[in-house]
Amino acid sequence: MLWREELEEVKAIVTREILRAIEENVRPEGLAKASAHLIKGGGKRLRPYLVVEVGRSLGANLDRLLPGAMAVEFIHNFSLIHDDIMDNDQFRRGIRTVHTLWGVPTGILAGDVLYALAFTSLGKLREVGVRASRVQMAYEELSKAVLRLAVGQGLDMTFPKMRKVRISSYIEMIGLKTGALFECSAKLGAIIADGKRRTISKMGVFGRYIGIAFQIIDDILGIFGDERVTGKPVGSDIREGKKTILVLYTLKKAEKSEKKLLLRTLGKRDARRSEISKAISVIERSGAKEYAMGVARKYALKAVAALDALPDGPHKEHLKGLAEFIIEREF
Amino acid sequence: MLWREELEEVKAIVTREILRAIEENVRPEGLAKASAHLIKGGGKRLRPYLVVEVGRSLGANLDRLLPGAMAVEFIHNFSLIHDDIMDNDQFRRGIRTVHTLWGVPTGILAGDVLYALAFTSLGKLREVGVRASRVQMAYEELSKAVLRLAVGQGLDMTFPKMRKVRISSYIEMIGLKTGALFECSAKLGAIIADGKRRTISKMGVFGRYIGIAFQIIDDILGIFGDERVTGKPVGSDIREGKKTILVLYTLKKAEKSEKKLLLRTLGKRDARRSEISKAISVIERSGAKEYAMGVARKYALKAVAALDALPDGPHKEHLKGLAEFIIEREF
Repeated sequence: MLWREELEEVKAIVTREILRAIEENVRPEGLAKASAHLIKGGGKRLRPYLVVEVGRSLGANLDRLLPGAMAVEFIHNFSLIHDDIMDNDQFRRGIRTVHTLWGVPTGILAGDVLYALAFTSLGKLREVGVRASRVQMAYEELSKAVLRLAVGQGLDMTFPKMRKVRISSYIEMIGLKTGALFECSAKLGAIIADGKRRTISKMGVFGRYIGIAFQIIDDILGIFGDERVTGKPVGSDIREGKKTILVLYTLKKAEKSEKKLLLRTLGKRDARRSEISKAISVIERSGAKEYAMGVARKYALKAVAALDALPDGPHKEHLKGLAEFIIEREF
Repeated sequence: MLWREELEEVKAIVTREILRAIEENVRPEGLAKASAHLIKGGGKRLRPYLVVEVGRSLGANLDRLLPGAMAVEFIHNFSLIHDDIMDNDQFRRGIRTVHTLWGVPTGILAGDVLYALAFTSLGKLREVGVRASRVQMAYEELSKAVLRLAVGQGLDMTFPKMRKVRISSYIEMIGLKTGALFECSAKLGAIIADGKRRTISKMGVFGRYIGIAFQIIDDILGIFGDERVTGKPVGSDIREGKKTILVLYTLKKAEKSEKKLLLRTLGKRDARRSEISKAISVIERSGAKEYAMGVARKYALKAVAALDALPDGPHKEHLKGLAEFIIEREF
């Protein structure tokens, strides 16, 4: 389990530096606290880990990679804060969401602050010796990723109102909403480590595909996970009418009466726990979980295949470990 | 009035290119429409004009300056959309605000989209021949500006809850909330035009000071302006309890009974029009408007002094015209 030890190391340093950047740059105090809240509350730091492992496997050291690692985590947390407002989610990582504690205005602004800190963080790349042309590439990748992330979130928001959503549209949507930032993370590692164009592009493929696998597993855990472990209330996706791969598969494959049972609860904001349980049983009986796991595994395998662009060594093995973890995880 | 003709030229091109970028990059359609709404609704495009005029006076052409000009206008409009949600403002530029038409979730996301487009726009600087080191500087300036803009907005939000706010704190706050992006705009012009460090820094001073003057005039127009001309309801600042320079001066200089009259209405969300009128009369009688105009003029003069760093010529004269307009404007 060596890769997990390395993850813990990266996690500790990235978390410390992110909190320091917030403390040094954000006023007033309330806004700084709101901005730091989710980061203090936990998180796996998989995106920074991707930056670091890809970069290390290409010979760069942590000091050099740190600004990139921080940037993607800043973007991730900005998007969580804004998404929680949009979905009106009450809990995340087992703690109250930012807007439920500080109100919507401060929530929006805290997200905007983390968004800005992501880009100011990339500015530090010059100080650690990265060439201007590479810094400029890093900015470009990050900004493209944020745009795609927002478009993905926009599509996600329209799905509940659409009568028919194809599974391929769902995959495209999560490729944007989640895949784009994983893709950017892996690419940033290669960009900062002065990787070749082909390596950068292959790392993009790796990141994108594990991002897609990650989101599928996330959607499975949102319905079949243990909320004491995931930190997110089971059933919130169903109450919000989210068209996840599980729901789409069930609506495609289940019998008419079963479909009706699911549609009755899907999108019902005030659904009771017993209704949620029934909806989950319908999804379970359809075989959607097994189907979704299969799709996630397929993407993880395609991701691992793209690792051939990296030199053999411990960091490449760690990235394989990460791909496995993403599939096996329970939180 | 030659400078106004040039402003119209820049405005038309920047608006067209911004709308094109939204159309090409944003999905689904509803999100694209929400993102374009305020830009279609009007706006003076003073920030892009700053980029262009500073850049032109240093020898750069419009093609080269356009990505920078678009970037600052994208940031400006992102901040308007988010601010309107935070303040729950219903009207802007004489039309309904984004969140009142599309809802808060789409409003937040539309802001995030424009935010991202600002940074992807800077990525185009490479394509028009700007050196990587300058592109990287442009990214750095823009990201610092957005951070300061958010901090300024955070301070602005805390002022209504504070018992005592100094006029110097107000000036500091607007220097961040409004000054930072004007500063960045003028600097971007110089950065893209390959200006010297000293020129870039002087242009920062110019932009920052006209930004401060601009915001003071904005606050005056918010109370004494004609809402058919400004497009913003008179009195909304008073209802929101905003501690503008006018309010701060009145609270400092007016007699006790007058102060009481103002404080009774300040921050009263459901204040009637007659109450607002009384509060405005108190502010008028205190001499706050003349005081604030004087402060705005002082900053505009300091700004114009910084223009000595630019070579003599029509564009320098246009920038002087802009500084004058900012003080004299009625919208």
